[in-house]
Amino acid sequence: MMLCVVNNCGWAVFDFGTYKNEYTNIWLRSSEVLPEASAHDSPFLRLESHTGMRRIQFSFYIHYRIINMSLSQLDDVRIAIAEQVKFEVLTHTQELDNEKARHQITRSFISDTLTVPSKEMYLYASMASLGDDVYYEPSAVALEAHMAKLTGKEAALFLPSGTMSNQIALRTHLKQPPYAILCDNRAHIYRYEAGGTAFHSGASTIAVSPTNGHHLTLADVQANIVLDDNVAIAPVQVIALENTLNGTIMPQEDAVAISDYAHSKGVKMHLDGARIWHVAMETGISMSELCKPFDSASMCFSKGLGAPIGSCLVGTKDFIKRARWFRKLFGGGMRQTSILTASAAFALTHNFPRLEYVHGLTRKLANGMKELGVNIITAETCMVFFDPSSIGVTHAELAQRAGALADPILISGNPRLVLHIQTSEEVVTDLLALIRTMAEEEKAAGYVSPAQTDEHRNGKGNIYR
Amino acid sequence: MMLCVVNNCGWAVFDFGTYKNEYTNIWLRSSEVLPEASAHDSPFLRLESHTGMRRIQFSFYIHYRIINMSLSQLDDVRIAIAEQVKFEVLTHTQELDNEKARHQITRSFISDTLTVPSKEMYLYASMASLGDDVYYEPSAVALEAHMAKLTGKEAALFLPSGTMSNQIALRTHLKQPPYAILCDNRAHIYRYEAGGTAFHSGASTIAVSPTNGHHLTLADVQANIVLDDNVAIAPVQVIALENTLNGTIMPQEDAVAISDYAHSKGVKMHLDGARIWHVAMETGISMSELCKPFDSASMCFSKGLGAPIGSCLVGTKDFIKRARWFRKLFGGGMRQTSILTASAAFALTHNFPRLEYVHGLTRKLANGMKELGVNIITAETCMVFFDPSSIGVTHAELAQRAGALADPILISGNPRLVLHIQTSEEVVTDLLALIRTMAEEEKAAGYVSPAQTDEHRNGKGNIYR
Amino acid sequence: MMLCVVNNCGWAVFDFGTYKNEYTNIWLRSSEVLPEASAHDSPFLRLESHTGMRRIQFSFYIHYRIINMSLSQLDDVRIAIAEQVKFEVLTHTQELDNEKARHQITRSFISDTLTVPSKEMYLYASMASLGDDVYYEPSAVALEAHMAKLTGKEAALFLPSGTMSNQIALRTHLKQPPYAILCDNRAHIYRYEAGGTAFHSGASTIAVSPTNGHHLTLADVQANIVLDDNVAIAPVQVIALENTLNGTIMPQEDAVAISDYAHSKGVKMHLDGARIWHVAMETGISMSELCKPFDSASMCFSKGLGAPIGSCLVGTKDFIKRARWFRKLFGGGMRQTSILTASAAFALTHNFPRLEYVHGLTRKLANGMKELGVNIITAETCMVFFDPSSIGVTHAELAQRAGALADPILISGNPRLVLHIQTSEEVVTDLLALIRTMAEEEKAAGYVSPAQTDEHRNGKGNIYR
Amino acid sequence: MMLCVVNNCGWAVFDFGTYKNEYTNIWLRSSEVLPEASAHDSPFLRLESHTGMRRIQFSFYIHYRIINMSLSQLDDVRIAIAEQVKFEVLTHTQELDNEKARHQITRSFISDTLTVPSKEMYLYASMASLGDDVYYEPSAVALEAHMAKLTGKEAALFLPSGTMSNQIALRTHLKQPPYAILCDNRAHIYRYEAGGTAFHSGASTIAVSPTNGHHLTLADVQANIVLDDNVAIAPVQVIALENTLNGTIMPQEDAVAISDYAHSKGVKMHLDGARIWHVAMETGISMSELCKPFDSASMCFSKGLGAPIGSCLVGTKDFIKRARWFRKLFGGGMRQTSILTASAAFALTHNFPRLEYVHGLTRKLANGMKELGVNIITAETCMVFFDPSSIGVTHAELAQRAGALADPILISGNPRLVLHIQTSEEVVTDLLALIRTMAEEEKAAGYVSPAQTDEHRNGKGNIYR
Repeated sequence: MMLCVVNNCGWAVFDFGTYKNEYTNIWLRSSEVLPEASAHDSPFLRLESHTGMRRIQFSFYIHYRIINMSLSQLDDVRIAIAEQVKFEVLTHTQELDNEKARHQITRSFISDTLTVPSKEMYLYASMASLGDDVYYEPSAVALEAHMAKLTGKEAALFLPSGTMSNQIALRTHLKQPPYAILCDNRAHIYRYEAGGTAFHSGASTIAVSPTNGHHLTLADVQANIVLDDNVAIAPVQVIALENTLNGTIMPQEDAVAISDYAHSKGVKMHLDGARIWHVAMETGISMSELCKPFDSASMCFSKGLGAPIGSCLVGTKDFIKRARWFRKLFGGGMRQTSILTASAAFALTHNFPRLEYVHGLTRKLANGMKELGVNIITAETCMVFFDPSSIGVTHAELAQRAGALADPILISGNPRLVLHIQTSEEVVTDLLALIRTMAEEEKAAGYVSPAQTDEHRNGKGNIYR
Repeated sequence: MMLCVVNNCGWAVFDFGTYKNEYTNIWLRSSEVLPEASAHDSPFLRLESHTGMRRIQFSFYIHYRIINMSLSQLDDVRIAIAEQVKFEVLTHTQELDNEKARHQITRSFISDTLTVPSKEMYLYASMASLGDDVYYEPSAVALEAHMAKLTGKEAALFLPSGTMSNQIALRTHLKQPPYAILCDNRAHIYRYEAGGTAFHSGASTIAVSPTNGHHLTLADVQANIVLDDNVAIAPVQVIALENTLNGTIMPQEDAVAISDYAHSKGVKMHLDGARIWHVAMETGISMSELCKPFDSASMCFSKGLGAPIGSCLVGTKDFIKRARWFRKLFGGGMRQTSILTASAAFALTHNFPRLEYVHGLTRKLANGMKELGVNIITAETCMVFFDPSSIGVTHAELAQRAGALADPILISGNPRLVLHIQTSEEVVTDLLALIRTMAEEEKAAGYVSPAQTDEHRNGKGNIYR
Repeated sequence: MMLCVVNNCGWAVFDFGTYKNEYTNIWLRSSEVLPEASAHDSPFLRLESHTGMRRIQFSFYIHYRIINMSLSQLDDVRIAIAEQVKFEVLTHTQELDNEKARHQITRSFISDTLTVPSKEMYLYASMASLGDDVYYEPSAVALEAHMAKLTGKEAALFLPSGTMSNQIALRTHLKQPPYAILCDNRAHIYRYEAGGTAFHSGASTIAVSPTNGHHLTLADVQANIVLDDNVAIAPVQVIALENTLNGTIMPQEDAVAISDYAHSKGVKMHLDGARIWHVAMETGISMSELCKPFDSASMCFSKGLGAPIGSCLVGTKDFIKRARWFRKLFGGGMRQTSILTASAAFALTHNFPRLEYVHGLTRKLANGMKELGVNIITAETCMVFFDPSSIGVTHAELAQRAGALADPILISGNPRLVLHIQTSEEVVTDLLALIRTMAEEEKAAGYVSPAQTDEHRNGKGNIYR
Repeated sequence: MMLCVVNNCGWAVFDFGTYKNEYTNIWLRSSEVLPEASAHDSPFLRLESHTGMRRIQFSFYIHYRIINMSLSQLDDVRIAIAEQVKFEVLTHTQELDNEKARHQITRSFISDTLTVPSKEMYLYASMASLGDDVYYEPSAVALEAHMAKLTGKEAALFLPSGTMSNQIALRTHLKQPPYAILCDNRAHIYRYEAGGTAFHSGASTIAVSPTNGHHLTLADVQANIVLDDNVAIAPVQVIALENTLNGTIMPQEDAVAISDYAHSKGVKMHLDGARIWHVAMETGISMSELCKPFDSASMCFSKGLGAPIGSCLVGTKDFIKRARWFRKLFGGGMRQTSILTASAAFALTHNFPRLEYVHGLTRKLANGMKELGVNIITAETCMVFFDPSSIGVTHAELAQRAGALADPILISGNPRLVLHIQTSEEVVTDLLALIRTMAEEEKAAGYVSPAQTDEHRNGKGNIYR
């Protein structure tokens, strides 16, 4: 049944007799077909309904297989394929499901990444510009310009995730190996980006445990940095700080001191500012001042801000131009991004101001837990790190009991609770009530709280965000 | 103004007198504060309105800087920051702008990546599930299951781009260097993914120019493959084919022959099926049969299908599990993806069937151009590769004249025209009219068409998609 | 039996009674031992011949296991270990073996890498300086200075192999991905360095088949180079040429033309000059002129020059400084290298002049084979590429017959014969005699030589060197 | 002057008149030359001394430039080039220089890498086999077999350096990213191999500070290892231990415990045994028992053993086969290696037994320093780590004074002294005398030694080896 093509420019002899009344989707240029061939769709010929031996000269490669079917049969086949391809993704109860999901998120302390877009957000976003971001989508361009201005940098780049934003920032700063980066040993780039700095950049990491148990200081940096030009070492070329880190705030003075030192040594500074929004809201320091010590900064729209997808990287024009190249290389160049960038814009306008509410709720929860005897490790912005062993309860027990409530509360079973713009005041009350009940049960069962020690620092924090 | 912290566990002495009536956002655990400190927000203390020397013992690191402002001043600062953060991304004329954009796309032959989402698509997509895809978003899970079934594979993975999908597929197949991949020398993975195979996988590429000028055959593969275990070479471990490639269709028989050979040598097969949809529609071969010769296949929703963003990679369960790890590593793990996956579902249902219209329009355009004397190189699905020098016109001249029409037609100025589901019948008529006019002008100016040669093959095609 | 150390600073209680008359290689600081412990080897205490319970306080980690043996037993154990460690590498018949090897190499056409060091070479080399090249070995420094001067470059670096020299050169030129290199598709760096450019540098390779079948020209380069700053591509940053390539000479004019073009585009030029020595000798062009078009050049001492090990990379001071760092990173930094660098110096002085003899012998062999009807593909310096099918003989048959001679001739069975400074005139005569015999046998058996075609080019050469 | 070649098979017309009495090294096949061309070197033609227009048909590419010189002139040019190439590496006073170097090394505490080959070693080594190790050099094969047997492994591989041996071992164990290795934070692979694990393998490193300040224990490993299959992390796939590390011995029991745990988790074990020889000699534990807990081990010949160059990697046959491939990829495949492998054999036989002398001398030096009041940090095999501040002296002062002696002693100025097989007993006496003098001077100047603290651990050691 195959059309036997001997070479690219010659004669193929085949018997159309077997294809009588059939449609063959062979296209030939009319000029390449002998006179007796009838061209109905010139300059391409569809050979249909031929009988007997045919001799066709062609000068171009013919590839199609001859399909043993009539035109109407082919139509049927196409309809069947379309039937296979089509897909209904909405469940029969989608609206109800979503209502449940919206309620559930008000009662989840798992992560602020779980915040869901509101209907208003999508209504707004779906009205945005219609472009292809490979060719500079208008909404992306506008959002990037806004982010650059907000952070006091020259340029910005929209990216599908915080991980890509950090990894591309490092990859862009690092020119030629060997080199290393220096960061906090609890940093997201070191612990939760799947070893990306070694994989993407071939960079070694000097992961420093902060002496003060809270954040890196200049002294920590100086004690651990390697800057030699000895061929046996990989010199540090980037220092990456994270703010907030496990929900704690990096003192701006320390960031400035580290930055001054780094720049004096020709070392670049990167900020993993996935949750820098919280720092601005809590400290009243402007975004541009917070970003000032850094050559680049990465910020997420999809965590505390509640947009569905996306991060933004800021830096100099040259830096961002190069980062754009890496974005393509990483496969992070997307097409009609306005639904995402406009959602981010909506989040900046409507969700950022709500972080004050989140921080207040965090304080309320932490205070309440403290009063009930739970050891609070840190609670500076939207996260509470806690140790309930002081009331005789394990993290796992608390998570199990919370999940078993009539209206369940979702807790991860690790020392971290995350609050967010969709956390209800009610769930804080409910959780405190549960903890009170459990503490009383333990006390009734004879548990005596030990003298409180101070060994629980967040310096060893190893919690997924 | 700084709180001077000498060590982590000791005494800090400072004078609150200077902060009279000020708010300092220092939080101290109430138990750590001397009796005379008044705790108003227990267990955390906000030190407000104190006078005179205070001596505070604390046992945990205190980081906050002391802000020289009152509570109401801080509120003002926060309001000012929120003002800086907020952003209106919609233009004053957004609706009108979008109407223009929708019209423009009907008249653009630049790329099918430019197709824009319809209002119906976003209306549908914004009703979809509310989840975080790092924790398996329901719509993503459903779409992935559908894609796996459609292509006859075990599992699927949603990704932000075709480039990431291809690169992760290769990275997942390749285990330990040294290794090479073999592909067509016009392949997207070789020419338009920024050298990703070398960058991400450290893989060499054997880029083969197809002998027939159209597609790779088993003979081409066998003549170029390196399989030795000689330490001096990098053996081929993956053969990657592309279908369609520059809009041309890979004969299924050749794909099968290459696959049989590859598998007999332990070599994996990957399909860059960004536009495989067109092959299914044009040939009537089902998606699962088209994917059968391949261990993995990548398919785009954002090109011919007209969804805003996203690709899908399919393969075995183990392969996809590993690919998911690489997706995280590449920064392609996204959060609330349902707006994208549901748009893709909408495109599968509503846009796939329209590819028949696109192919018919492509034939109409190619036939018309041929009749006007333009040399048609290929025109098999949604692309026309052409050479207008046969009528005395350059690509650049045609692009310039098309762009200068009262209702402009967008042409890239290279030998490629791309049609898509939003291409109007009218623009085909208009373009043919323009070509007719230009051909007549050239003839009037004395241009005589040379004898047609056959040197224009798509084997040297180097056109951005 | 183990010393149980509970913590780093405390008391360990153990019973030395069981170790009576035993030697325990526990070292303790004398100050850390209670008075009743007798220190005989102060400040370290060897606890010997103690009886009864002992209580020892120590403030430093003690790690040694207590060995259940007396001092004399330990001596016996050490003697036994030394017995296991020692190794005689010379065979009982080593001198005779080596004589055979020296004869065999005179009759081998496998590769010039097989040339063996002469006794004079090692006598000379073993008198050289005594230093550690990590701290700049004097002979290495002197050889590097000589090579820099010879090639007209600022600096040089001694390396253990040509592969490392090439790969480090490329790695040093390439700063930040994405990038590509352009080379001949028969180049050693592309075919026989195990995919090193992708592995070490993450660089894509554009491997160009020379249009003229002999060497790359500027036209070839311009037709294939990619220089765009489009994010979808990986721009060429290095052009690497090879001279000789498969024993053929790169015309200097073409090298210059490519270099001028490359430098005008900011592209670096690297020369794989493993066998550049042959070009200098054959053409009379000086080494410095040959290297002039290149930013870096790699030259081997262990191929045609007959030194045992080593290559040299030359370039600017900055380039070599950076290359030295990569040498360490690749593990190519060696210690007492003078035995190798002095052997290389000996080869420069004594073996380089013999290349004229080698080239004459190559011409003699090629002429002889041609006269016997063998198709000679190339024979420009020390290699003959040939096709014996013109006399009815296969490469494998020739190799088999040559290996079966009373005094065997070693031939690889591929189209390449390599001559070298240790090839005897006699073996050329013998090989020609064998070919004559085989040709006559074939003729007698009725073989008729076909009309000679021109399809045998070295453009497809794929021969291991 | 250029021969203008229009195409590969045609006619070139050029005027030889201008080259009268000149030699042109153009080679043409005689059959391709018109009758009037005189072939003197058939089948290749050297066109000499022609006059007037010549028309030559050729069917093969002609590349040579036409050299404007006679045959005798060319000879002169070649002689001139040979003159430039030749190089005398021996100084006029080489023998005297070497005597001085041999004396100097007896008085150097810089590193055991500085040990120099003896004349006997090279006399022995220069008698060894004559082969090319790319084709399996007999001495290399024999040494590798010996090392495999000695260490109880299946196979071995000779390599140019310890860095390459370690890096290739890790690269061979690691299959597909993401992955991490775990090691001591003072490990050579982490600190002194230029970030090789990230560069070559894309591996993250978890660098653990040993809790006991001396060596890693199972508890340290378990507290820091990451083994999850969470997509956000890079799981540990290799644990690499070093023995000796900074001259200290890893307790075999700890190595076994870590190995048992690692293997139960599917994690590979690598030993950086650059100085494992010292452990065998000091503890009396055999090499095979020391290597038993490890899947691979790397051992240096060029440090304590005093061979000029080389390391050996051991493991399973499959592991070593793969490592050989990586050796080629890294450029570590060398040619006539017998001069190095036979030197290593000599060192095994003659130098290994001398390590007992070295360790005794180390104890003598450490005891002497301790008695003089110097704080000794560790002194277990061939290294003394010390702190002279206890006698009021800095490392730099000691180094300066030692270097200023009539017969200088070489000290690095850091806390490390290294002894080796070429260290004389005399230099130990001299150094102790110097320290005594300096201590007395300080005392005379009023220095009072403080109470000894225990803060000097080698856990922070950061000393180049």
